[in-house]
Amino acid sequence: MQRIEHRACFGGWQHVYRHTSATLDGEATFAVYLPPQAEQRACPVLYWLSGLTCTEQNFITKAGAQRYAAEHGVILVAPDTSPRGPGVADADAYDLGQGAGFYVDATQAPWASHYRMFDYVSNELPALIEAQFPATRARAISGHSMGGHGALVVALKNPGRYRSVSAFSPIVAPSEVPWGQKAFAAYLGEDREAWKAWDASALVANATERLPLLVDQGEADEFLSTQLRPDRLREACEAAGHPLDLRLRPGYDHSYYFIASFIGEHIAHHAAALKG
Amino acid sequence: MQRIEHRACFGGWQHVYRHTSATLDGEATFAVYLPPQAEQRACPVLYWLSGLTCTEQNFITKAGAQRYAAEHGVILVAPDTSPRGPGVADADAYDLGQGAGFYVDATQAPWASHYRMFDYVSNELPALIEAQFPATRARAISGHSMGGHGALVVALKNPGRYRSVSAFSPIVAPSEVPWGQKAFAAYLGEDREAWKAWDASALVANATERLPLLVDQGEADEFLSTQLRPDRLREACEAAGHPLDLRLRPGYDHSYYFIASFIGEHIAHHAAALKG
Repeated sequence: MQRIEHRACFGGWQHVYRHTSATLDGEATFAVYLPPQAEQRACPVLYWLSGLTCTEQNFITKAGAQRYAAEHGVILVAPDTSPRGPGVADADAYDLGQGAGFYVDATQAPWASHYRMFDYVSNELPALIEAQFPATRARAISGHSMGGHGALVVALKNPGRYRSVSAFSPIVAPSEVPWGQKAFAAYLGEDREAWKAWDASALVANATERLPLLVDQGEADEFLSTQLRPDRLREACEAAGHPLDLRLRPGYDHSYYFIASFIGEHIAHHAAALKG
Repeated sequence: MQRIEHRACFGGWQHVYRHTSATLDGEATFAVYLPPQAEQRACPVLYWLSGLTCTEQNFITKAGAQRYAAEHGVILVAPDTSPRGPGVADADAYDLGQGAGFYVDATQAPWASHYRMFDYVSNELPALIEAQFPATRARAISGHSMGGHGALVVALKNPGRYRSVSAFSPIVAPSEVPWGQKAFAAYLGEDREAWKAWDASALVANATERLPLLVDQGEADEFLSTQLRPDRLREACEAAGHPLDLRLRPGYDHSYYFIASFIGEHIAHHAAALKG
């Protein structure tokens, strides 16, 4: 594990590390923010999954989350959004391949050999964080857009592993929208039945754990009705009796200005659950 | 004046505008954040000047300043760092030409025709802001690195025009360090006597207004001893009896992580002065 960035921030440290991931069969990069409290004791961890085209950098440079993490004594971990590198399959598109791993474990060639972001985020990354940093095993997860989908799916598929989950502008029904259909067809194949295991709106129907879902969605989001469809998650949660706190925010778009405006509320929500 | 970005942010609006500047003799871009209070009444304005290589984007995407501006009811205005465009002189260097205007009024060819950032920031931009937005005439100014130099110089050369001034990691003695010497030789010519009119450490000696200077400087800043030299400003302020609050911050570097960590303190400082 190699440290490639190290910066003082709100009394703590913003780091970026690169390591060799067995799950992704190659190099992987993640950011970790250690709040000042981590100098004295182990702290709980909030995982953040970013959206299409992002790396580990977007969240740590644009969300302003470190201030709240320092207030609440929460470690922030933000992985890259896909495997990367010259030996890793890619597509000539912003919404498939490198930068667009969709937090699934791919089953189809040429993706299956490296594209295992679900396994990486669920298992290898938390094990690494808990071994190498002053982290407790109390975990929360959040993310944006494709990463909001990732956060919901990772929490729903790993009952008991997360104290809380939230999402900004998530793709809640990937099986039903263009971004998800394109990615799932490539990574998972044409059998749409298999897609349901990676679709938050399908997964809530059979969730064994009633972990409340906190979702923030801007009403001026340019992808609202075509790709995000929060109505589908609301319908699924109502049908399943799954707790959902869906907050529609007038005027806000899909950008980090939206995330920055409400990340403080999300971190307070997670901090309360992580302390419980 | 054309609006090119418009984003909800912390209950207010982050805008970016482009306009034709008479001073710069061409197109100019600036960002303006209107806090929620600006829907009801005119608000005071904090101008922010960015550093080398920056545009109006760096501060608005990375500093997290909108949260504090919304708390205090302060408008934030962040211009680009130089004139730009195909007809504007440039150099094949990050520290001269486009992106490196140094907030002076150039006197030398080929720069003199467009590089008038001092005049633009001091006169045209505030007049435009006060005419087009719900802004009072109460002004404060701050900036980072080259922009920290800019903020100090603009305030010192315009006595009575700013209620408060601050800077992060400023180039306080440009006449004595490589960045400043290169830029001043190009923009102002080889006569070093002329440089003193654009050098904060020289200007405090003859300042007619005792406006306190608030300066934050990271002690792990990679440019501290070569380009920034806060000791020179301290010596000049001590010699002149000019008030200076120089805050040295252990561990912090030259990046926006440093600015984000302390911009809240600066905005609180400016808000208090702007209300006075």
